[in-house]
Amino acid sequence: MTSMGRPSDQNLETKEIDLRSMSSSSHGQVPQVYKVAVPPRQNLFKEFQATIKETFFADDPLRPFKDQSISRKFILGIEAIFPILKWGRSYNLKKFRGDLISGLTIASLCIPQDIGYAKLAHLSPQYGLYSSFVPPLIYAVMGSSRDIAIGPVAVVSLLLGTLLSNEFDPITNAEEYQRLAFTATFFAGITQATLGVLRLGFLIDFLSHAAIVGFMGGAAITISLQQLKGFLGIKTKMFTTKTDIVSEFVNCFLIHSYYVRQGKKNRRLFWLPAIAPLISVILSTFFVFITRADKKGVEIVRKIEKGINPSSVKDLYLTGENLGKGFKVGIVAGMIALTEASAIGRTFASMKDYQLDGNKEMVALGTMNIVGSMTSCYVATGSFSRSAVNFMAGCQTAVSNIVMSVVVFLTLEFITPLFKYTPNAILSAIIISAVVNLIDYEAAILIWKIDKFDFVACMGAFFGVVFVSVEIGLLIAVCISFAKILLQVTRPRTAILGKIPRTNVYRNIQQYPEASKVPGVLIVRVDSAVYFSNSNYVKERTLRWLTDEEDKVKGDYPTKIQFLIVEMSPVTDIDTSGIQAFQELHRSLEKRGVELVLANPGPVVTEKLYASNFVNAIGEDKIFLTVAEAIAYCSPKVVEDP
Amino acid sequence: MTSMGRPSDQNLETKEIDLRSMSSSSHGQVPQVYKVAVPPRQNLFKEFQATIKETFFADDPLRPFKDQSISRKFILGIEAIFPILKWGRSYNLKKFRGDLISGLTIASLCIPQDIGYAKLAHLSPQYGLYSSFVPPLIYAVMGSSRDIAIGPVAVVSLLLGTLLSNEFDPITNAEEYQRLAFTATFFAGITQATLGVLRLGFLIDFLSHAAIVGFMGGAAITISLQQLKGFLGIKTKMFTTKTDIVSEFVNCFLIHSYYVRQGKKNRRLFWLPAIAPLISVILSTFFVFITRADKKGVEIVRKIEKGINPSSVKDLYLTGENLGKGFKVGIVAGMIALTEASAIGRTFASMKDYQLDGNKEMVALGTMNIVGSMTSCYVATGSFSRSAVNFMAGCQTAVSNIVMSVVVFLTLEFITPLFKYTPNAILSAIIISAVVNLIDYEAAILIWKIDKFDFVACMGAFFGVVFVSVEIGLLIAVCISFAKILLQVTRPRTAILGKIPRTNVYRNIQQYPEASKVPGVLIVRVDSAVYFSNSNYVKERTLRWLTDEEDKVKGDYPTKIQFLIVEMSPVTDIDTSGIQAFQELHRSLEKRGVELVLANPGPVVTEKLYASNFVNAIGEDKIFLTVAEAIAYCSPKVVEDP
Repeated sequence: MTSMGRPSDQNLETKEIDLRSMSSSSHGQVPQVYKVAVPPRQNLFKEFQATIKETFFADDPLRPFKDQSISRKFILGIEAIFPILKWGRSYNLKKFRGDLISGLTIASLCIPQDIGYAKLAHLSPQYGLYSSFVPPLIYAVMGSSRDIAIGPVAVVSLLLGTLLSNEFDPITNAEEYQRLAFTATFFAGITQATLGVLRLGFLIDFLSHAAIVGFMGGAAITISLQQLKGFLGIKTKMFTTKTDIVSEFVNCFLIHSYYVRQGKKNRRLFWLPAIAPLISVILSTFFVFITRADKKGVEIVRKIEKGINPSSVKDLYLTGENLGKGFKVGIVAGMIALTEASAIGRTFASMKDYQLDGNKEMVALGTMNIVGSMTSCYVATGSFSRSAVNFMAGCQTAVSNIVMSVVVFLTLEFITPLFKYTPNAILSAIIISAVVNLIDYEAAILIWKIDKFDFVACMGAFFGVVFVSVEIGLLIAVCISFAKILLQVTRPRTAILGKIPRTNVYRNIQQYPEASKVPGVLIVRVDSAVYFSNSNYVKERTLRWLTDEEDKVKGDYPTKIQFLIVEMSPVTDIDTSGIQAFQELHRSLEKRGVELVLANPGPVVTEKLYASNFVNAIGEDKIFLTVAEAIAYCSPKVVEDP
Repeated sequence: MTSMGRPSDQNLETKEIDLRSMSSSSHGQVPQVYKVAVPPRQNLFKEFQATIKETFFADDPLRPFKDQSISRKFILGIEAIFPILKWGRSYNLKKFRGDLISGLTIASLCIPQDIGYAKLAHLSPQYGLYSSFVPPLIYAVMGSSRDIAIGPVAVVSLLLGTLLSNEFDPITNAEEYQRLAFTATFFAGITQATLGVLRLGFLIDFLSHAAIVGFMGGAAITISLQQLKGFLGIKTKMFTTKTDIVSEFVNCFLIHSYYVRQGKKNRRLFWLPAIAPLISVILSTFFVFITRADKKGVEIVRKIEKGINPSSVKDLYLTGENLGKGFKVGIVAGMIALTEASAIGRTFASMKDYQLDGNKEMVALGTMNIVGSMTSCYVATGSFSRSAVNFMAGCQTAVSNIVMSVVVFLTLEFITPLFKYTPNAILSAIIISAVVNLIDYEAAILIWKIDKFDFVACMGAFFGVVFVSVEIGLLIAVCISFAKILLQVTRPRTAILGKIPRTNVYRNIQQYPEASKVPGVLIVRVDSAVYFSNSNYVKERTLRWLTDEEDKVKGDYPTKIQFLIVEMSPVTDIDTSGIQAFQELHRSLEKRGVELVLANPGPVVTEKLYASNFVNAIGEDKIFLTVAEAIAYCSPKVVEDP
């Protein structure tokens, strides 16, 4: 590599820009010329500390701990881990009313959903209910979201079902399959908790909103089609049997969808769609029970265990190759579960305007899944449909989750046996009506309007899931997201600035066509930090702007470009490659007889310009606070050609 | 996902900001309020086209083809592939003088180096010379750099040697080893050519300058130690033999290093260090020949083939598992070779100020290695040491490479047999004196001064290579480089702005401590495009700024924050996640009774703010061209608390 000129240290102390050149300029609009300050140098440790803080503690979680006594700090620490101790103190009956209603509502919604989702994951129905009993309790004491409803969700169930069946057949190897499911759940929990503890929560931000919309939509379509197949399968079979069954299905499906529509129409009837599923289940189960329709070819749940979660500690694969398999599946499922939960958490938090510590949330979700994996639960997370209902039902705190969990407990203890007459068809109907809400076509339309590239990501994920598989869809989503990031860092925008009439403001002439260029001067704004990934591009792009300009000049107006002002405001940072690029730029410009002038370099950049001695190379008097001042310096010097 | 409010289309037409609110404000400093223009919407195709162009054709390679006749275009096309046809026409005797001298100089330098480097790659000496015969010829007709000197280089030889010996033992499986070397060379060429053709050249920018400095330094140390070991090994052995040999070595090494130092002292004696190696080789070879020192335990080259490159087409592994091995090694070696070549190319191009099309260069280098792999050459690229000498010797065009190649040809045809008496020790000495220049400690010091993070990358790569292995060092370099990019996109800078006394300019108060805050107003500047990877951080960081301010306010001065101005100038782009984050920010602010005001959104952002209907959410009159105007709007509205 070429070594750059070494800075002589005294430059690091030079803090002011020489003003000679300016005192002469008599531009009225520029009130007075201000020096571009070099910020007081921080010592290395401080710098490092600041970076670490912004990276891992951006949300400043330690704020409350500031200047507190040791004992107080300890209490705060405990409260931080178990937020219930904090909000529990101010809990009152009024709040409980809200939580009770919403708790009961989501319970009535979750029970049928759980049974259905368990089927998506190729697990026996009771595991769905188990996963709505233990995890919500854990979350209630550790989580800080007030609106999220915890339990199994469609997409994760589908994903888990798909990934696990790649390893074991859920029918022939039922037991291994089940054990692997718990193992995966365990590692999903470990993944989530670890990310939280290491405060790497921001990693999930690398799955873009657009990609998620596409992925969810695709998953929803896939699930609906699966269910519909089963549904129609039964229908056709039924025509060969007594018609009362047909009517029975049709009407209970109609009841169901009627309720749902009602609720959609009238916000105050939120509870209708919420309890509709349970009602349809009860009705249809009852019908089947009295008509014994199952004998006439109606698929029913048939077998469902009574009683609460048995321990599954011994079922976890903690050695051998199955450990690896479970680990792989767990990471994927865990990440998706996180994405879903944190999206929900953030949404409602910003609706009610309370802060959520993403990393703390992850620890809570992780712990809940780890414990879950030992109590026969599979991956649980925040459910879109139920959280929305929870919110509308006026939940106040995580107590609504406790209420739900209690209801599920009672169900498991006393009612479950009755579910064995529940027809699968009604469950399919419930699943479909739950997942269709995941198809957020409005968001897709909006994405199309706002950002075409995002739309590609969205569609990529969508079609990947629908036509290939869940994993592929996910992979596509991640890849496109990363491609976008790479594009962002390699190809920053640059713009030519012009003077806006009757102001002293210089703006992008593409946005303000009326903005006028200053003869003999080219103003280029670089719109990103200049790092190794784009330094070379920035240099060459700038030179290209110059060449283009010079071509124009030959034609239009006579004055040759003699000054290149680089507006540095957006250049928030620069690294050694960046400095090198600017040195090369400066060299090329000298060859062409063009002077390089800088406007408004930020604190970090200014410091580095001095550290690298580049300031001396171009001359300290060539750095200005504003473009206006730079122009005030250049314009008088421009030589009109004959 | 939460679906955002859908924009009503007529907003997309809304092109102007309502000025009511401003006409009243009587701030003298703001000459008149200017509307934030929504740029004329480009159609989708245009947008797409622009992105593609900036990404893959940033250097505008098709500029010369613009409005030319078909036949002319064809000729230009041929010239683009074979630049020699272009510069060849204007070639003259004066230029040839320069090329002849420099060509002879680098030839004298490359011959001993090649023999040494071949040993680094565990190949017999003649392959080094082969690689300095064919590749330079190909490059001369296809390459566009005028100063680069083509041939085998130390680092790539070492890398190749290490990677290949992981697959085959160079001694016991000499033949497979050699064939794999050619296969690797073939795929190195394919990789380079492909990157060039697909115009993915920018991918090599992902290895940061700092990382390369560290990697090269580490490789140089490793090589030197290897060579020194051999060197001393012989020394010790020699003490048991006649002392005349000791003296012989010592003095020829001294001569050599003397020349080198001479050259370093006096720039006009550039040719001294250049020919020193050859002289030392000739002298030492002569000594050994007459004294028959080899009989007395002096390691000599012993065997070296006469004649030019035999064909090696049939040696390439194009099937079986060896294909895969060769492919893997080839990609790595090819990328490193590219990095080295393009670094050299750029440096000298910017010194003499001529443009280099990085992608065209890659095609040239690729072709040269593909052909090389079929003519018994191993990976060749631009050599730092020789290119520098070439430049100093006053080379004018790639003809100097042709001259060198001719000299190597003559050497192969007539002189090679003599080299068999050349003592390995002198070759080691030559290699060492060549690679020590790769240890660019000045650059390292500068990196330390400029960017601590870069320094970590540099040292990581350095120690990785020295203490672990070349591959690990490389891996570390790449990983750290990527970590930096991720950090850049996830954690953009934000800053609080204040009014600089006696101006109408608002700047970072951290850089300008004298800048004064406006009571009741908080001005935050976001310093990056807002994408899914950082949108959430940006939102939360902004809210944190507000909280911090409000805490201060309670203490210091009475006025509560009532306006949050977000300075958008550096926000060059925003995606759906970004819009969503701003919507959430706006919601949270409303809850706190703070008004959100935007200053100077760029063209793309403005368009998307309208497309997403966010403008209507915050009110069109809340978007201003400058912070000053935003302040002029806010300040009068601020209510002083009692």
